Amino acid sequence: VTTRVLVNGAADDAVAVNDRGFQYGDGLFETVAVRDGMPLLWSRHLARLHRGAERLGLALPDAAVLTREAHALCHGLARAVLKLVISRGPGARGYRLPASPQPTRVLSVVDGPVTLDATDTATVRLCATRLSLQPALAGVKHLNRLEQVLARAEWGDDYSEGLMSDTAGNIIEGTASNVFLVADGVLCTPDVSQCGVAGVVRELVLERAPALGIRCLVQPITLDLLYRADEMFLTNSLIGVRPVTRLEQRTYAIGQITEDIRQTLKQIDAIV
Amino acid sequence: VTTRVLVNGAADDAVAVNDRGFQYGDGLFETVAVRDGMPLLWSRHLARLHRGAERLGLALPDAAVLTREAHALCHGLARAVLKLVISRGPGARGYRLPASPQPTRVLSVVDGPVTLDATDTATVRLCATRLSLQPALAGVKHLNRLEQVLARAEWGDDYSEGLMSDTAGNIIEGTASNVFLVADGVLCTPDVSQCGVAGVVRELVLERAPALGIRCLVQPITLDLLYRADEMFLTNSLIGVRPVTRLEQRTYAIGQITEDIRQTLKQIDAIV
Repeated sequence: VTTRVLVNGAADDAVAVNDRGFQYGDGLFETVAVRDGMPLLWSRHLARLHRGAERLGLALPDAAVLTREAHALCHGLARAVLKLVISRGPGARGYRLPASPQPTRVLSVVDGPVTLDATDTATVRLCATRLSLQPALAGVKHLNRLEQVLARAEWGDDYSEGLMSDTAGNIIEGTASNVFLVADGVLCTPDVSQCGVAGVVRELVLERAPALGIRCLVQPITLDLLYRADEMFLTNSLIGVRPVTRLEQRTYAIGQITEDIRQTLKQIDAIV
Repeated sequence: VTTRVLVNGAADDAVAVNDRGFQYGDGLFETVAVRDGMPLLWSRHLARLHRGAERLGLALPDAAVLTREAHALCHGLARAVLKLVISRGPGARGYRLPASPQPTRVLSVVDGPVTLDATDTATVRLCATRLSLQPALAGVKHLNRLEQVLARAEWGDDYSEGLMSDTAGNIIEGTASNVFLVADGVLCTPDVSQCGVAGVVRELVLERAPALGIRCLVQPITLDLLYRADEMFLTNSLIGVRPVTRLEQRTYAIGQITEDIRQTLKQIDAIV
């Protein structure tokens, strides 16, 4: 496995111990599929990064710099995963923001398969670890990920993904993916305004569904709805659209709506 | 300002970019007052670190190693602040725990005044940023600190500290301190089982109050109780016990119970 890393534009593999990313998780990240040297859905990833930066009051590096460095890092790689981390940079002791923050940008790429267009399916379980309700951070792909770490520690290899509920008991997302259901012919996915991450592929599915004649609702997903749904799929930037065939003991068919969404998203190369 | 840093026992000032502390905030920290070369309340800080490590399933370095490195770092410093960060160490992509985690330990000391026995007072404000309810992480001094970062960004120099409420509206703590009130002659402090940090000085106050003839309750603190309280003070390992003289427009006297607690805690040198 080849890994290449740029820290603030220079080949490096370390950040300062007083970086607020390390001290407080004070920053944002993006995980991007790379194909034939190109980061996919790049403008959407940058747009989400900007929305997150506004929420945290974080000054981002210039988009042109990020794009240039991403392309340099991905050059020549047929299939890879690019990760960007933007932290608020070094700081003195205490939570107070530095007077003149110097954000740290870490771009790293790992060579290897991206399964965005694969025909893989997923099996899922329900996690005991809940997502707390925090509108100030909801939707944002920030570096405070202990809830996901605890949830992922609940199982090993026996499932592809775990579904997480919020503290009210509604299903919100997978530990590293968004979730969609089809019930009564309607595609639905949870709201992420109180917790969860607003995934770029989730956004794309919500945008594209109407043109495919698919009615799509953002609505609470109860356990009951989960069990009585006809189809389920997961989305993220690396797996694209992945049908769920089993939730613990309950099996699901790969239905027509899932197939239609998946076929559309397979053309994702065209929408870099 | 002199800063000395040890990373895994060696003089260094950086951690790997793939450290899960930087990637996910996957770790714990302690902030410790140093006087005359000695880290104060050391065994209590270690005990809390161990409780946090159990909650996160984090393998800690040996306590003897931490103690040796802390003493080496603090040697010869009359007044200083020692910070320990223990992260889960380097990891591959994804939330899943490494098969054989190699935790990273960062001990850093900053020379300078510790006001543990100072007669300073504090002024406080109410923060708009709320603490989310998450029993899986409550009480633990972990590295996911974005709520505190956002709360501290709400004001500048005009107040010493900001009080944070939970999403139900009850006061829980300051951004970097615990809070105590005296109302109707009873000392009270919020429960930290749903959110907040279980501070070592908070613990000490709860232990010592009964012997001083002070009745002490862990109970919800509403805004109403906050305004009608007779005394208020903040605690943490660096400020010790600090009386609050003002909450925005409302002033507070420094009362007898606060004084009694403060006098007792001034002997904190003796209880290293």
